Amino acid sequence: MALSRFDALLAQHDADHVVGALAPFVGQARRQTIERVLAARLLGIEIVLEDLFDPRNAAAVMRTAEAFGVYRLHISDPNEEFRPAKTVTKGCHRWLEMQRHRNTVACIEGLRAAGVAVWAAALEAPHTMDDIDVSGPVAVVFGNEHRGVSPDAQAACTGTFSIPMVGFSQSLNISAAAAIAIHALTGRRRAELGGLSDLTPSQTQRMRAQMLAWSVREPEALVAHYALAVPTNSPPIQSRSPDDTY
Amino acid sequence: MALSRFDALLAQHDADHVVGALAPFVGQARRQTIERVLAARLLGIEIVLEDLFDPRNAAAVMRTAEAFGVYRLHISDPNEEFRPAKTVTKGCHRWLEMQRHRNTVACIEGLRAAGVAVWAAALEAPHTMDDIDVSGPVAVVFGNEHRGVSPDAQAACTGTFSIPMVGFSQSLNISAAAAIAIHALTGRRRAELGGLSDLTPSQTQRMRAQMLAWSVREPEALVAHYALAVPTNSPPIQSRSPDDTY
Repeated sequence: MALSRFDALLAQHDADHVVGALAPFVGQARRQTIERVLAARLLGIEIVLEDLFDPRNAAAVMRTAEAFGVYRLHISDPNEEFRPAKTVTKGCHRWLEMQRHRNTVACIEGLRAAGVAVWAAALEAPHTMDDIDVSGPVAVVFGNEHRGVSPDAQAACTGTFSIPMVGFSQSLNISAAAAIAIHALTGRRRAELGGLSDLTPSQTQRMRAQMLAWSVREPEALVAHYALAVPTNSPPIQSRSPDDTY
Repeated sequence: MALSRFDALLAQHDADHVVGALAPFVGQARRQTIERVLAARLLGIEIVLEDLFDPRNAAAVMRTAEAFGVYRLHISDPNEEFRPAKTVTKGCHRWLEMQRHRNTVACIEGLRAAGVAVWAAALEAPHTMDDIDVSGPVAVVFGNEHRGVSPDAQAACTGTFSIPMVGFSQSLNISAAAAIAIHALTGRRRAELGGLSDLTPSQTQRMRAQMLAWSVREPEALVAHYALAVPTNSPPIQSRSPDDTY
């Protein structure tokens, strides 16, 4: 179920209503998995991938991000239509919000305007991964396999960071670099939070509605049917507002 | 320069002699790089790769291992001739000792007989990465992309470990999993050591000789010429003895 289709559903019905309508149609094992995953979702770490050449690399990063509870991924792809390799994502792309951008600088400026600190991975950087302050929302940018993050995108960021290395090799495969950064940053953010998730209750409920909608065949029909019995008057929810960034 | 060729050189001449013969023929920048790398080499973390399907994955693991100072890599490849993808290793395979094995269990038993604790990565494991004691020498085993580490190899190990995950995805791409484990284990080992390297002075000198030999065109001729001026009487050094495991 594409995100726009879900957005349309949640523009018409509030999250409590969608959860009430769909939960009875989702098996117990799947609902338990959803609750386990929801309890450890992070909105405060986002990933930006700029113009990756190999779709297997993007897919591997998506799989790592999802495995460590990252939810929001930005794909900047100015030159071609991006398609992650499904054999590598193992279906995890369904559980991420993937935002596509034609322009990396505009993507970064949008994130920073929303209060997100944006850090670009770069080989010669004045900061290391450990210097990134994860007490507030952070996005990390990984660049093309050959060229790295573009100079314009680096300049638009809060700063650049490296992963300290001690070998003849002073660079890593993109999937390895992203894995190390995602593992370290999500771990540090959870240590700072003193918990696994940074979602507010309303963000959690909205994501629960989304995961349930992804888990049934015709969510619109089920929600519409439920609405006949339980009418909803709630106003539509914006996708990103100051108080509720999800 | 293949390792066997270097072994032949060091069977005839001691490491001090090889270093004395070759250092004048290696440029200052390269010698500085060698000293930087030597100061952070670890023999106490080794990697075993069992029957990897995709040579790009093995090459990415080699590059990550070298970047974090791991030196010794074991490739178990019972079915086919293994060739790492050179476009992914970026030449780093020259700076690793790559030992090939036809049988993973024999490789693991050999390591354990030499006092190395051997841990296999497995999805359902009673321990996590953080439980591995890195105060002594450790090898970690990663298995085939589809089947994981074979049951026989797991049974031969000291134990199995997982990398804790919180997503719908409960597994990672092999290059991502190995990157996270190598980064974490080398970091913890260095914290335990209170330093970057675990090599003894004689191990460091032997590795210096090796890196210098890799850096010149005809090391045998240079060493032989030097031997005419400075005869050596030192006994040959064994590759792995109880006191000096390098």
